[in-house]
Amino acid sequence: MLRVAVVGYGYWGPNLVRNFNESEHTTTAIVCDTDEARLAKARDQSPGAQVTARFEEVLTGNIDAVAIATPVGTHHELARRALEAGKHVLVEKPFTILVEQAEELVTLAERAGRVLLVDHVFVYSPAVQKIKELVDAGHLGRLYFIDSVRINLGLFQHDVNVAWDLAPHDLSIVDHLFGRLPRSVAAMGSSHTSSGLEDAAYLNLDYGEGLRANFHVNWLSPVKVRQMIVGGSERSIIYNDMDTVERVKVYDRGIDVTNDPESRRRVLINYRSGDVWSPQIGPSEPLRQMVDHFADCILTGTQPLTGGDSGVRVVRILDAAQRSIKADGGRVLL
Amino acid sequence: MLRVAVVGYGYWGPNLVRNFNESEHTTTAIVCDTDEARLAKARDQSPGAQVTARFEEVLTGNIDAVAIATPVGTHHELARRALEAGKHVLVEKPFTILVEQAEELVTLAERAGRVLLVDHVFVYSPAVQKIKELVDAGHLGRLYFIDSVRINLGLFQHDVNVAWDLAPHDLSIVDHLFGRLPRSVAAMGSSHTSSGLEDAAYLNLDYGEGLRANFHVNWLSPVKVRQMIVGGSERSIIYNDMDTVERVKVYDRGIDVTNDPESRRRVLINYRSGDVWSPQIGPSEPLRQMVDHFADCILTGTQPLTGGDSGVRVVRILDAAQRSIKADGGRVLL
Amino acid sequence: MLRVAVVGYGYWGPNLVRNFNESEHTTTAIVCDTDEARLAKARDQSPGAQVTARFEEVLTGNIDAVAIATPVGTHHELARRALEAGKHVLVEKPFTILVEQAEELVTLAERAGRVLLVDHVFVYSPAVQKIKELVDAGHLGRLYFIDSVRINLGLFQHDVNVAWDLAPHDLSIVDHLFGRLPRSVAAMGSSHTSSGLEDAAYLNLDYGEGLRANFHVNWLSPVKVRQMIVGGSERSIIYNDMDTVERVKVYDRGIDVTNDPESRRRVLINYRSGDVWSPQIGPSEPLRQMVDHFADCILTGTQPLTGGDSGVRVVRILDAAQRSIKADGGRVLL
Amino acid sequence: MLRVAVVGYGYWGPNLVRNFNESEHTTTAIVCDTDEARLAKARDQSPGAQVTARFEEVLTGNIDAVAIATPVGTHHELARRALEAGKHVLVEKPFTILVEQAEELVTLAERAGRVLLVDHVFVYSPAVQKIKELVDAGHLGRLYFIDSVRINLGLFQHDVNVAWDLAPHDLSIVDHLFGRLPRSVAAMGSSHTSSGLEDAAYLNLDYGEGLRANFHVNWLSPVKVRQMIVGGSERSIIYNDMDTVERVKVYDRGIDVTNDPESRRRVLINYRSGDVWSPQIGPSEPLRQMVDHFADCILTGTQPLTGGDSGVRVVRILDAAQRSIKADGGRVLL
Repeated sequence: MLRVAVVGYGYWGPNLVRNFNESEHTTTAIVCDTDEARLAKARDQSPGAQVTARFEEVLTGNIDAVAIATPVGTHHELARRALEAGKHVLVEKPFTILVEQAEELVTLAERAGRVLLVDHVFVYSPAVQKIKELVDAGHLGRLYFIDSVRINLGLFQHDVNVAWDLAPHDLSIVDHLFGRLPRSVAAMGSSHTSSGLEDAAYLNLDYGEGLRANFHVNWLSPVKVRQMIVGGSERSIIYNDMDTVERVKVYDRGIDVTNDPESRRRVLINYRSGDVWSPQIGPSEPLRQMVDHFADCILTGTQPLTGGDSGVRVVRILDAAQRSIKADGGRVLL
Repeated sequence: MLRVAVVGYGYWGPNLVRNFNESEHTTTAIVCDTDEARLAKARDQSPGAQVTARFEEVLTGNIDAVAIATPVGTHHELARRALEAGKHVLVEKPFTILVEQAEELVTLAERAGRVLLVDHVFVYSPAVQKIKELVDAGHLGRLYFIDSVRINLGLFQHDVNVAWDLAPHDLSIVDHLFGRLPRSVAAMGSSHTSSGLEDAAYLNLDYGEGLRANFHVNWLSPVKVRQMIVGGSERSIIYNDMDTVERVKVYDRGIDVTNDPESRRRVLINYRSGDVWSPQIGPSEPLRQMVDHFADCILTGTQPLTGGDSGVRVVRILDAAQRSIKADGGRVLL
Repeated sequence: MLRVAVVGYGYWGPNLVRNFNESEHTTTAIVCDTDEARLAKARDQSPGAQVTARFEEVLTGNIDAVAIATPVGTHHELARRALEAGKHVLVEKPFTILVEQAEELVTLAERAGRVLLVDHVFVYSPAVQKIKELVDAGHLGRLYFIDSVRINLGLFQHDVNVAWDLAPHDLSIVDHLFGRLPRSVAAMGSSHTSSGLEDAAYLNLDYGEGLRANFHVNWLSPVKVRQMIVGGSERSIIYNDMDTVERVKVYDRGIDVTNDPESRRRVLINYRSGDVWSPQIGPSEPLRQMVDHFADCILTGTQPLTGGDSGVRVVRILDAAQRSIKADGGRVLL
Repeated sequence: MLRVAVVGYGYWGPNLVRNFNESEHTTTAIVCDTDEARLAKARDQSPGAQVTARFEEVLTGNIDAVAIATPVGTHHELARRALEAGKHVLVEKPFTILVEQAEELVTLAERAGRVLLVDHVFVYSPAVQKIKELVDAGHLGRLYFIDSVRINLGLFQHDVNVAWDLAPHDLSIVDHLFGRLPRSVAAMGSSHTSSGLEDAAYLNLDYGEGLRANFHVNWLSPVKVRQMIVGGSERSIIYNDMDTVERVKVYDRGIDVTNDPESRRRVLINYRSGDVWSPQIGPSEPLRQMVDHFADCILTGTQPLTGGDSGVRVVRILDAAQRSIKADGGRVLL
């Protein structure tokens, strides 16, 4: 049984604690937070765990791994010290503020021979696993475009802008599908509050060979939308995470450019062409899958699906997007 | 009864002929097309109308107005000659290929004292009229953003790219709401066929004071989506043209940036906040409204809702978008 | 080219006229209605057709077939006289008021060697054709139940109650699937207006061997619903005629009665089990298919898909339902 | 702090334990189940509670109230003994197997001055509370009909048929709205497994004055549907419990029986008439509301919203439905 310390007990920390407790491979041994009221709640939720306001107790504690769910500005410092203390480390997204910080953590983990996993939790959802399987099997043909919308009402105080808050989810999904950086990033954003943080943004990633991925993230939307279209030459997928019944839909259609007016008329009248297939997606909790995977990487040496390298790539894209927003959409090469 | 000549009898022409015949103020007097098979169909559809392959017969015919539904490359030449022959003119969207052509037609119409109307047909839909009414009444508060998605499978031969094909609908709606040009346009597009025409594009318009409008147009989507979000400080609207039952939804919500963790938790759990109201939208045919409005402008001197000036603005945006796409998203000032 | 007379030019008649004109096998030769304003409209719609207020002119006219779209109370008389005059006959649904009338028309048509087709138009829709194909191929396994909902706001004056108005659509679809009468019918209805006509009704048909079909028809619903579930031992179908994108959905699932608590928990958590498949359904107009089929039956002697015999069965069910409603749900044997 | 014993730790019991622990007014003091594996789970979930396989320990334990979540066949015996031991009692639905059992428990509770609450949990949902508020305020005008559909895939072993399993939810909602018994009940059901238990059923309740309520419950449906229409003379409500975004929708429309053909045509074309309003419904957990209400009734003497009397009425309807099913739909007077 791996003993884990959860650092940061705000919005996400309690979910980590619960899942580390429920997994048969792990247990929450320590909860660390600087807020006394939160620690009281942690005591209620996880009576068996030690609670502390001092990170030093985590470093010296009888634990195997540290999960960091604090504000992003502290990730690098806490993860660095945990790795230096010989712990395996799981870091909440976004991984770090600076690209250099992310790269340094990867180097440290490699040198120390410790697992470094970034909490790109959607990668562990059955829906994304199914999409990855279909893409890898060539089911979609050549990929043409990805269009992602992740918008909702979210106008409360943040430490980062909407791109850093919401886009890591989608960027990590696309990173999981492709496993490589785009060539360039262009992004546009706008802010409507005195904080000056962007609350609506568009990111456009050029992967070369005609493949573009576009991301719309927004805290001002009246409704919650989580939808990604993966368009291919043979088939396309619509992944609607709000649709609990048909989360993943696969649309059959070949693309034939035609000059025939009658077939044009048909297409204009039709709402879609080809069959639709919605594979059964199990109801498993992605976070639990990730916690089990983290344990598996520690125990068996398996390479993490969302290791520090994926964290570096996502931070590089976010960093480029930030610079592009400042340059009003000017394209930034990676 | 106004006598109208319809020039071009391809996809849209028959709809014009039918509506000019059904309106009590107009009748289709001439149908002109260079394709003999199409003229035969026109004879069937509108037995009372003269059919001809020669545009000269339109110019010298006993008619009051000319409606032009030919490929966009011919719009300017045909409209110019019709105005010079003293006819009122209705031009299919997109208005013209070049900004200068559009401006010349406006000048000609003014000089000749003739009505020049651009077929921005969505402006005449009850849904857009309702949205305009709500925006003008201040119901939404300060406008924050517009996000529009108009995507479908449309991979057949085109004479223009996807931005010129699909975006005029949305650009004309936004132009109707604001009545002015944006400050700048940035656009990105990609092509996946040998034609080289962009089949997927994103346009981003900056209207100043934090108001941005973003447009996603795409011929590669497996499903048809026509949705526009108009986000405001007091309320927001979702206009889903595919939802025949609740085409326009108004979402109540004030935006209060809060630091209170409990209210943050509530927002994260909730799918939306505030009531939703979907006003009854009548089933009237927008094209019929436009045809009646065209007749009204001719008969009473009313200023067209979608006159040549709106056509100029939309063409200027499309032209800027085209240049921005060539510059890989570089922002173009207007 | 078959020459057809359309009798009755109210709500449905103009659709018949248009389709007989558009089909290459038929033309509308005569339009007959007692209302002079309607005849004026018919003259506009179909300039080539003779219009008349006198049914005698239909009987003596140079025509091959008569299509009857008058109020149901007149169907039997008009169809009888048309058959006796040697014409082929198409009758709007519901076929007749009385079972005996329906049976008499079948006998007359057989004796005269003329085609008698009942306008069960949904049978000719691509969606129902696809369902028939799947059921006949055994794709659903053993049929367990049919549940149909056809409700909308329809509170204007009617000559029949809601069961006679709306249920023929669904009853004819089920008749097409099974081709036989149920063993018994039970029905309940209620009326909320001074007319005394039922405006909400439930029909329950027992087909034996555990197969029941239930129909909910209602003029008081705030929304329009047209949905039929066909439940089988191997697969089930949901046919939602309001869903223009995925009209027919096929749900994979075997039914295993299990005592295993974990599988029970899974089912309770899951929204559905098994894959979903939505076959592509073409956009063809069912009425046009029916008109072409009517012509084909006349020209080649093909047996009608919805001949007088199906009309008799539907009227027998409606008649039994009527008697059951009067008996407050008492079951009526057929 | 009220001390509660939860008897029965199968599907529902753990939810009761959690909510009694989370409420500030109650705590789970004892968990009782005859299955040792379940008791082990209870120990994990609620370390502070005593666990026992002997109901006698519940009766003699230091507790204020007993919550019974065992199979329905044991409800009466356990509840009777708990009331006789002076405990307040909460009973899972369905309340009892026999009407006499339900009535006896009500008498016992009254005599003992103890709270008897039936777990009609949907009554405590914000959606049903909102509907009750609108109905009571006369917002819907005169009620015309209720149509309820509660269907899903549920083919695992049951101790009762589908009517007893699923209908109590809807019957208790309608009982909460009206607070009285219907005049009569007719029901039809069918079974497709060797158990002989009905797995699909329709219940039709006559409340007099033209008001009927119809309930479709079904374990064979490929999809999960939970929808109730409440139709009134002024407005109608659609309550779709699967729609997390717009659970309750209010449809404006007056009902005017009209003879005007044009208005008839409009209604036929329109999908709905009048505005739609979807009030904001909070995300609170109904079970938590019920647990707090149970505590409040015990502590302050408040009359329960879903006391034994509502339990009696629901069991009387289920009992009548059972007899009607046996009589193949014959109407049973209450």
